[in-house]
Amino acid sequence: MFNNVTIVGVGLISGSFSLALKEKGFAKHVIGVSRTKVSEQKALELGLIDEALSLEEAVKKSDFIYVAIPVDATIPVMKQIMDLVTDKQIVADAGSTKYALCDALKDHPMRQCFVATHPMWGTEYSGPEAAVHNAFSGRACVICEKEKSDKEAVEIIEKIYKELGMHLVYMDADAHDMHAAYVSHISHITSFALANTVLEKEKEEDAIFELAGGGFESTVRLAKSNPSMWAPIFMQNRENVLDVLNEHIAQLRKFKACLEKENVEYLYELMENANKIKRIIK
Amino acid sequence: MFNNVTIVGVGLISGSFSLALKEKGFAKHVIGVSRTKVSEQKALELGLIDEALSLEEAVKKSDFIYVAIPVDATIPVMKQIMDLVTDKQIVADAGSTKYALCDALKDHPMRQCFVATHPMWGTEYSGPEAAVHNAFSGRACVICEKEKSDKEAVEIIEKIYKELGMHLVYMDADAHDMHAAYVSHISHITSFALANTVLEKEKEEDAIFELAGGGFESTVRLAKSNPSMWAPIFMQNRENVLDVLNEHIAQLRKFKACLEKENVEYLYELMENANKIKRIIK
Repeated sequence: MFNNVTIVGVGLISGSFSLALKEKGFAKHVIGVSRTKVSEQKALELGLIDEALSLEEAVKKSDFIYVAIPVDATIPVMKQIMDLVTDKQIVADAGSTKYALCDALKDHPMRQCFVATHPMWGTEYSGPEAAVHNAFSGRACVICEKEKSDKEAVEIIEKIYKELGMHLVYMDADAHDMHAAYVSHISHITSFALANTVLEKEKEEDAIFELAGGGFESTVRLAKSNPSMWAPIFMQNRENVLDVLNEHIAQLRKFKACLEKENVEYLYELMENANKIKRIIK
Repeated sequence: MFNNVTIVGVGLISGSFSLALKEKGFAKHVIGVSRTKVSEQKALELGLIDEALSLEEAVKKSDFIYVAIPVDATIPVMKQIMDLVTDKQIVADAGSTKYALCDALKDHPMRQCFVATHPMWGTEYSGPEAAVHNAFSGRACVICEKEKSDKEAVEIIEKIYKELGMHLVYMDADAHDMHAAYVSHISHITSFALANTVLEKEKEEDAIFELAGGGFESTVRLAKSNPSMWAPIFMQNRENVLDVLNEHIAQLRKFKACLEKENVEYLYELMENANKIKRIIK
């Protein structure tokens, strides 16, 4: 149990995390740090935080600091935090990329205070209003470079995520970024691109509105995601994302070739191969 | 209220339709026609049908014949049915493509008995076990070439779909196929291709299993769909599907170019454009 916890960012992930910490009895008092007064105010109103302070004031008062902001902002903010903390404090982040951050902090004298984590939960919504109760449950949380963090700090973080219903997976930061590109980042790219495709082709928006069913909604819903969150993820993980995006374009071209050449046999083969995903996704 | 209804095909759509007809009081007795004894037996066990007969026997006994089988099989089967019916009977189909079927039946002397419909509901599952109660509700049902069907037959079909909670949309068959390519068929292609992409790149299936979250699942779930249903749809609607698939590959290439050239500004622009889908999909 922490007396004071700081969440940096007061949005979907940090807000949901704060609610969970309070509900599970891990935090008595949560301090929010936000770039904007509007979000601060909203987070206070929604009960996501008990107090709003500047980063420096908040860090000084807190036992545990949790950072969940766009991954490009995370690096400079995390450096500021690490320059302020003592070895009695724990710092963790929730970023969707891990290599750049771990690399930026690798020589910091307080590195052992930091635990690199990626709770793999989210929705297509953002901001304090997007925070929900009982988030995270049933999903994976990746912890990177566990060996570089203080053993006790890791144990506390593990206990929290487990209590939230997450299963823990351990990886190097670069392996994390590769797997995240495959199972998360590419889904967002395809969804953004599919939305653009349909908006481009379907000039009659009424037709989309009237006809779109469950299949369209599920493949396109991630296209509602916040560009300020996702552009930095794609840029920080651009080599892995490009690698899987090239493969995806190649796979789509196979479907295209089947249709152009009316090669029904190969079309079946492609779809039967795709059906193998049933083994993995129930 | 019909005394006897025949469903041709005893799977996801026909089975769910049969359950709905019975629950809403539209059918007393449902006869199932299936190519396989196994499906017939399963449909009887599940209470989707009351009796299994050959196509000819079933059609002769029925007031209403509803066809929901793969779209390539629909054309020859529908011709057989139309050769058997009298003007006291109503025939409808549920196929995801409409042009080829409407074109094949356009000169049939009994054309007015047939109502071309596409209830835009489905799941990624198939077969009798996939049939569910309360399907169809809240989705669109397209009726094509209404003017070529008997007025009373259309009114009865409209009443049924409305009672099932669907909203009706009227289109020409070729317009239907174009819009269906945009809002349904392309989603299936991207999902099949995404599954193949991830299965190709992610050699560690355990990693997909452990890490995949809600975003991945929702973009890839359609990849579990039945190739026997979808290959004929893609082939019958190949020109429209190719058109939208080419656009989709072009849209993905824009994301690729942004990443390759580190053009963050354009990346934001692409994602902000995609966010416009919020206006349409709540």
